[in-house]
Amino acid sequence: MATDMTLLWGSGSPPCWRVMIALEEKNLQGYNHKLLSFEKMEHKSQEVLDINPRGQLPSFKHGDVAVNESYAACFYLESQFKSQGNKLIPDSPAEQALMYQRMFEGLTFYEKLNAVIYYNWFIPEGERHDSALQRNKESLATEIKLWEGYLQKLGSGAHLAGPSFSLADVTVFPTVATLFRFGLSAECYPHLGEYYALLKERPSVKASWPPHWLENPKGQDTLKDI
Amino acid sequence: MATDMTLLWGSGSPPCWRVMIALEEKNLQGYNHKLLSFEKMEHKSQEVLDINPRGQLPSFKHGDVAVNESYAACFYLESQFKSQGNKLIPDSPAEQALMYQRMFEGLTFYEKLNAVIYYNWFIPEGERHDSALQRNKESLATEIKLWEGYLQKLGSGAHLAGPSFSLADVTVFPTVATLFRFGLSAECYPHLGEYYALLKERPSVKASWPPHWLENPKGQDTLKDI
Repeated sequence: MATDMTLLWGSGSPPCWRVMIALEEKNLQGYNHKLLSFEKMEHKSQEVLDINPRGQLPSFKHGDVAVNESYAACFYLESQFKSQGNKLIPDSPAEQALMYQRMFEGLTFYEKLNAVIYYNWFIPEGERHDSALQRNKESLATEIKLWEGYLQKLGSGAHLAGPSFSLADVTVFPTVATLFRFGLSAECYPHLGEYYALLKERPSVKASWPPHWLENPKGQDTLKDI
Repeated sequence: MATDMTLLWGSGSPPCWRVMIALEEKNLQGYNHKLLSFEKMEHKSQEVLDINPRGQLPSFKHGDVAVNESYAACFYLESQFKSQGNKLIPDSPAEQALMYQRMFEGLTFYEKLNAVIYYNWFIPEGERHDSALQRNKESLATEIKLWEGYLQKLGSGAHLAGPSFSLADVTVFPTVATLFRFGLSAECYPHLGEYYALLKERPSVKASWPPHWLENPKGQDTLKDI
């Protein structure tokens, strides 16, 4: 039981979800956790600031050690619990290279998604431009096609860095799930659709599924025409 | 001699510089490399696209394996050449946690720097707002103070994740160097100034110093008042 670990998190936040999947994969259940509300600005509360001076979720602590950046926490957990639970970094140099490559491309994917679905949240009213939002949408569409192509090339049943589940899936799956939550069409993007369907049945993913998505299974349709 | 490696790069690009420092630290001199010009749009040339479908620099190949994302290449090189050159991931869990944490905060640092110094490059003319640039500047100033505080806490002569040089320095130093190139005052930020002075004498950093900075040692003063 991982009672020396604490996670403060928000429901549906891809960075939080990454850490939760990693914890499940490494058999680190039983950690202390607290669900906080972004709407109520609880990510700026003293409780969060005590662990994470940036006032962001996830805030994660293992004993006295804080590791708040989601990618950092994933790497840290895999490194500290290498032989526990599932191995998340493949041995073969080529698979490892692909895993690292996709993980970091995954940050661009996540950023491009946010630039569309949270445009009004990020950009103050007086500074918004239809032209900018349109450009962001085109850029996201290009990005989605790139990932659709990656999955097509790997073939049916593959994970993002090859045959086995890896840190690339831990970090990028929450972005893919968010795309579908916001209405992406699995008919238009069948390989992403297949990947999503495969991974959402994985025990670590099921165990960490955003509770407000469970409560309200219908998402938005922001991305239905992308 | 790393003759089975190829790097396409641009002078002064922090992502390219990260990979070049990592290669030096791992004693992987002698790789094939080609300096390309962003101004001439050579990062969109076929030569680049053959390695990197995103048309970005760095483009890096080891044998048949392409690893273009700079963080991915750094992790890959450390993993594949663990016992060669300098060890770039510390053993102690606390130092390792700090290293991962600072590496990924480093991406935010780099992004906030770009949002100021390349504002006009990123934002089309009709969509620019003084209020946005001002907000970006304030956000960068807050970020710089955070890193100044990190270094102050670690004490004189420290690296970003503790006593030894690590991947945190490989990835974040190019951002710090760019701050000073764009006029940051070492008097206002003495700990960052000391860190910069220490690292710029490191052989891997000297060997990979941006050639156009050497040719023209005077930078801009964009950040002199920040």
